[in-house]
Amino acid sequence: MLGRVVEEVAPLRGSGVVADYIPALARVDPSCFGIAVADLEGRVRGAGDWEMPFSMQSISKVFTLALVLSRGDGTLWNRVGREPSGNAFNSLIQLEHERGIPRNPFINAGALTVTDELISQVGDASGDLLEFLRAESGNPGLRVDDEVAESEVAHGDRNLALTHFMASYGNVCNPVPTVIEQYVRQCSIAMSCRDLALAGRFLAAHGVRRDGSELLTRRQAKRINAIMLTCGTYDAAGEFAYRVGIPGKSGVGGGILAVVPGRCAIAVWSPGLDARGNSVAGVAALDHFTTLTGWSIF
Amino acid sequence: MLGRVVEEVAPLRGSGVVADYIPALARVDPSCFGIAVADLEGRVRGAGDWEMPFSMQSISKVFTLALVLSRGDGTLWNRVGREPSGNAFNSLIQLEHERGIPRNPFINAGALTVTDELISQVGDASGDLLEFLRAESGNPGLRVDDEVAESEVAHGDRNLALTHFMASYGNVCNPVPTVIEQYVRQCSIAMSCRDLALAGRFLAAHGVRRDGSELLTRRQAKRINAIMLTCGTYDAAGEFAYRVGIPGKSGVGGGILAVVPGRCAIAVWSPGLDARGNSVAGVAALDHFTTLTGWSIF
Amino acid sequence: MLGRVVEEVAPLRGSGVVADYIPALARVDPSCFGIAVADLEGRVRGAGDWEMPFSMQSISKVFTLALVLSRGDGTLWNRVGREPSGNAFNSLIQLEHERGIPRNPFINAGALTVTDELISQVGDASGDLLEFLRAESGNPGLRVDDEVAESEVAHGDRNLALTHFMASYGNVCNPVPTVIEQYVRQCSIAMSCRDLALAGRFLAAHGVRRDGSELLTRRQAKRINAIMLTCGTYDAAGEFAYRVGIPGKSGVGGGILAVVPGRCAIAVWSPGLDARGNSVAGVAALDHFTTLTGWSIF
Amino acid sequence: MLGRVVEEVAPLRGSGVVADYIPALARVDPSCFGIAVADLEGRVRGAGDWEMPFSMQSISKVFTLALVLSRGDGTLWNRVGREPSGNAFNSLIQLEHERGIPRNPFINAGALTVTDELISQVGDASGDLLEFLRAESGNPGLRVDDEVAESEVAHGDRNLALTHFMASYGNVCNPVPTVIEQYVRQCSIAMSCRDLALAGRFLAAHGVRRDGSELLTRRQAKRINAIMLTCGTYDAAGEFAYRVGIPGKSGVGGGILAVVPGRCAIAVWSPGLDARGNSVAGVAALDHFTTLTGWSIF
Repeated sequence: MLGRVVEEVAPLRGSGVVADYIPALARVDPSCFGIAVADLEGRVRGAGDWEMPFSMQSISKVFTLALVLSRGDGTLWNRVGREPSGNAFNSLIQLEHERGIPRNPFINAGALTVTDELISQVGDASGDLLEFLRAESGNPGLRVDDEVAESEVAHGDRNLALTHFMASYGNVCNPVPTVIEQYVRQCSIAMSCRDLALAGRFLAAHGVRRDGSELLTRRQAKRINAIMLTCGTYDAAGEFAYRVGIPGKSGVGGGILAVVPGRCAIAVWSPGLDARGNSVAGVAALDHFTTLTGWSIF
Repeated sequence: MLGRVVEEVAPLRGSGVVADYIPALARVDPSCFGIAVADLEGRVRGAGDWEMPFSMQSISKVFTLALVLSRGDGTLWNRVGREPSGNAFNSLIQLEHERGIPRNPFINAGALTVTDELISQVGDASGDLLEFLRAESGNPGLRVDDEVAESEVAHGDRNLALTHFMASYGNVCNPVPTVIEQYVRQCSIAMSCRDLALAGRFLAAHGVRRDGSELLTRRQAKRINAIMLTCGTYDAAGEFAYRVGIPGKSGVGGGILAVVPGRCAIAVWSPGLDARGNSVAGVAALDHFTTLTGWSIF
Repeated sequence: MLGRVVEEVAPLRGSGVVADYIPALARVDPSCFGIAVADLEGRVRGAGDWEMPFSMQSISKVFTLALVLSRGDGTLWNRVGREPSGNAFNSLIQLEHERGIPRNPFINAGALTVTDELISQVGDASGDLLEFLRAESGNPGLRVDDEVAESEVAHGDRNLALTHFMASYGNVCNPVPTVIEQYVRQCSIAMSCRDLALAGRFLAAHGVRRDGSELLTRRQAKRINAIMLTCGTYDAAGEFAYRVGIPGKSGVGGGILAVVPGRCAIAVWSPGLDARGNSVAGVAALDHFTTLTGWSIF
Repeated sequence: MLGRVVEEVAPLRGSGVVADYIPALARVDPSCFGIAVADLEGRVRGAGDWEMPFSMQSISKVFTLALVLSRGDGTLWNRVGREPSGNAFNSLIQLEHERGIPRNPFINAGALTVTDELISQVGDASGDLLEFLRAESGNPGLRVDDEVAESEVAHGDRNLALTHFMASYGNVCNPVPTVIEQYVRQCSIAMSCRDLALAGRFLAAHGVRRDGSELLTRRQAKRINAIMLTCGTYDAAGEFAYRVGIPGKSGVGGGILAVVPGRCAIAVWSPGLDARGNSVAGVAALDHFTTLTGWSIF
């Protein structure tokens, strides 16, 4: 069936615009497309370029949120909200109206807060994330793409603005450059669809890791899935909820991680983005997949 | 099991604040609480004050949207968006930034657009709604509460502002007073939990009415459920998605209609509202209900 | 010297865009240009089309403010601010952030508040204004242009939105339709540059009318001039303050009333507007006039 | 007459709140008050604590703007506007709506742009400013207060946010830390009322320096005075224009520089600030001064 999805989206390969704000992303072949599905037992199947690594970018926000919550809900929800924002992912407007408290953990400001919290918990936040991703994907070769990370730092004015702005409201605990560095390194991890589907499997499994241990309670896993649905695809969450009908989180590298609670995790990747920053062929592939399977939460 | 929900929320009866912007709402007994569940076969069970009528208010927005879509997606989606707003239900700010196009059909501006569209389709929009609700609930006694309607008109400056504002962008087809009158009459329909659960059953049944006819396609029903989840509880949709985990639409009369796709529709009612305008005991009851049944879309 | 100004601005006649939201304004000849200067003694000189009547539009806001203040500062300053807005003249955004209190009396919302106050004081607000303008200009023929007034009412959605919006915050005392009607009639008064310069003379004369009676205290006249400078030309007040260097109030009919405190009032008119709604040739004429005379407040 | 002003404002000494975001400002004696007036010939008189140095803070924005303009209007007006903002001095909202172009040179974002431009012109921007201030005041002892500067840097998150934000729109030419350092050093210069009145004298003298050389053209001086009037006192410019009636620029150190074009420059200082960040006794003193002299531009 994944083969059929690959066929269906073939005409869309190369559609959209590849993120070009840094060279390392700009030179990715726009015709790439991959899809992988990991079931609750940890079996993974794929099609297309499903073993080719790409930059996970904002998809990392799902995992850092899970890692922070796995150590206790603690203070995080005092520092970041859980509601859709209605604004662009890097907007400062709502942040000013709401005095430095980001709307949710999936806009940049909120993810920077989550990273800041993770640094307070473990110190090496990106190392902690990498270790988790390696364990869940079974791929010890996962690594930060240093070229991407360096380019991101060099183009980091907006994230620096967001972080200093929150710091001016007292909502940053660690030094701003440290937060930025760790955040950028998380975003710069390169993974394949195969790796990503396996790494995200715990969200379908109500919080239980591959080895059977509990990363999150059922309630916490439900919360993350709910936030993915309402806030996971930038300013297109309503449209994604309708078209695809399952929780998903996208990144400007062209990847999307989606979850069918109780069934499977799905990773898709294609670099061409629509006007709202979501992969054109990726969204279409998830649409076909849910139509073919009849899996929808609605 | 509904009895157990009634017991669990008993301490919350009377919590929150009863809407008092019009006298007819203000004098409702805050200790009321009712719950009803209608399954796909049209069987309904209830507990508490489940047969006592209350003002449906914004819950009507779900039904008018369904009625408009049942006659074709036509022009509606050119006139109203489908994304969460991140602003208060009666805010004009986003409406100005987005040049008179409301964010979604469940904020007031969007619902006024839907009513305007329904008037263009059928003329007597509130009559059309009433007829539908009577048929689905099997209760021919449903009616508009004229006292509520008159009070709403007398306190209608904000809705008049919204409608004239959209009209200034060319996004209103019928005379403003007509739109307001029909909108207000829809909101002023009085229904019990029993009636409401039966009337909303078609959303659980993928668009199929009680008599087996198709009101909406499966895809349209899915869209309405998706919008309910992302936009149905004002500025608390993210929180509701997490706590309750199913689509829901609330009203300031204290009612909430919730849907477990493929299973049932649930109506709860208790007049005390939280700071975001959702029924305190109602949300808690749905939380208990989904916990007890294990039903969640996440 | 006025002849020289007419020569200097000749190449600009017809530049800009004539307001076309109502037919009666749209058909004005764009090549018209007039200028008139009234000194403290009530002598008036003019050049160009200085005796041709045009629609005063927003320039009326200066006079209604003066009339309200002449009966006491009373409650007005509790209902409207005195600061520049930084937003478009008909924006609702700031009005929502500041809970129904307009930023200043020269944006539409603020002028509607002033009209509402004047209605409370005298009943027939536009009649009161007309009487004042006739007396100061010595022109008993001044009248409301009924065609303009009717067109304005028919295109009045934005002003209706503003007024109902303020009413929803309790900041309107009279019925909304009455406020709109009186406001529109004030804006629809037709005056020539000659009439306008004479009518505005009291602002140069520290509040003293033609007949020697005191309309405003020196302090009140100073206040109006200060508001004209900081808020009188929509979102171009800073630019106007620099280029022209004296207080001024513009209207979409293409007129501008400017004041050299202690010396004279100047009226210019040319229908072509720049992107911010100010007369192209009118602003240029005032620029030349102040350069030639060396009169500037800075 | 200055003695009379000192008497009149005596009851206000100690009113308001001393800026306490950095220790060096917080420990200033709130009962201080000084006033000095410098005429066109460079004579200066004063009363009260008029020779006691205080932190000039935002008043420096007037001088850096003058220095940049003295080297040509060049590119500055492409990078910063000239209109009142209607928002707080350190808001990012308008900056986002207007894509990184600050509203005017006297809000923080605009002043950071001016500093950036001055760095491009002369390298050591704060050194250039200091040299100018020493020459005009005749006080070679003027210096940057290093303790204040260091504290400002340590509390600089908001300014870092503003600068990185503008950099993300390509509106910063020099390294962000350099811009911040120079900006902070300018703000941290300590001057007395005597020094400040002399240094600001050129604005009353149509751009001519103490030594008779032309710093600015008459038109440029007029522009700066116009911007001071419309934007010089944060969100209270309209009120200041009315009450005081002449251009002025305030700082959170409690100082205000005001200008009577063609006559004199006035410096006042008292550390207690009102809710909008302007010196309570300082504004009152200027009000008395203009009332006593009858000097007003309106």
